[in-house]
Amino acid sequence: MTDIEYMQVALLEAEKAAAAGEVPVGAIAVIDDEIVAKSFNLMEQKKSALAHAEILIIQELNRIVGDWRLDMATIYVTKEPCPMCAGAMVNSHIKKVVFGMADNRSGACGSSPHNIADNPDMLWQIEVVPRILEDECTMLFKQFFKKIREEKQKQKKDNL
Amino acid sequence: MTDIEYMQVALLEAEKAAAAGEVPVGAIAVIDDEIVAKSFNLMEQKKSALAHAEILIIQELNRIVGDWRLDMATIYVTKEPCPMCAGAMVNSHIKKVVFGMADNRSGACGSSPHNIADNPDMLWQIEVVPRILEDECTMLFKQFFKKIREEKQKQKKDNL
Repeated sequence: MTDIEYMQVALLEAEKAAAAGEVPVGAIAVIDDEIVAKSFNLMEQKKSALAHAEILIIQELNRIVGDWRLDMATIYVTKEPCPMCAGAMVNSHIKKVVFGMADNRSGACGSSPHNIADNPDMLWQIEVVPRILEDECTMLFKQFFKKIREEKQKQKKDNL
Repeated sequence: MTDIEYMQVALLEAEKAAAAGEVPVGAIAVIDDEIVAKSFNLMEQKKSALAHAEILIIQELNRIVGDWRLDMATIYVTKEPCPMCAGAMVNSHIKKVVFGMADNRSGACGSSPHNIADNPDMLWQIEVVPRILEDECTMLFKQFFKKIREEKQKQKKDNL
């Protein structure tokens, strides 16, 4: 499968997050051209800011591989990982990360001043492939927040 | 209790990590002047690079507080948090972090170029108190790695 095809699978995961009322970010992990794990953001449901899609994927990979070292794994994720997630990938020796929507404020894979994923100062460097299916990933994100704004406005009106 | 007294409790946690053969980092969480959680690094035992002391503390805080927002909590940790842990604290809206040993390579609370904890570009800023009981925290760290080196040299000799 191509990067675009893998990202399409990650996008399906992001859609599940949106349907669950979660910020729509989805991720998958690939080892030897095979999808071995899928996840989506569950921060609200799990009442934990640790429950980003990428952290859940790493937890699953730890279980599958039986080791903290994950240097055979590529992660596809619909939004550029934040410092927590990029740092978790560095600590886990992830081989490669492919992301969709760039985040020039808190993205930590090359789009903001704090690049954690591919930084010679870190003890591990990850190969980064940016902006795969970026328009589709961004659209899902924007639609989600637009819907939330509309619902809040409707609530306000109903309360008047 | 003072910052030094709280750090002494975190140091006891770090000693438990060393005794378990783990890189000796310990952490505690304080809410309203009360220690509500203690933890230490369990990366080898849990076979997961996510199992840093600070991440385990945040998991425990999520359970105790019942929310991803932890803006009432201060974390004391014997080593400056890495990008993963500082990012997790930012995402969790931690109020304050007090650390012992600084890390000018991958510390993400002011000692290296990538300051994640108290950065105006991030969506949340954490108050940082650096270098409390730094000598004691550093000594424990150095002793641990010295012991590992000595054990490896002994193994080499025994294998000759």
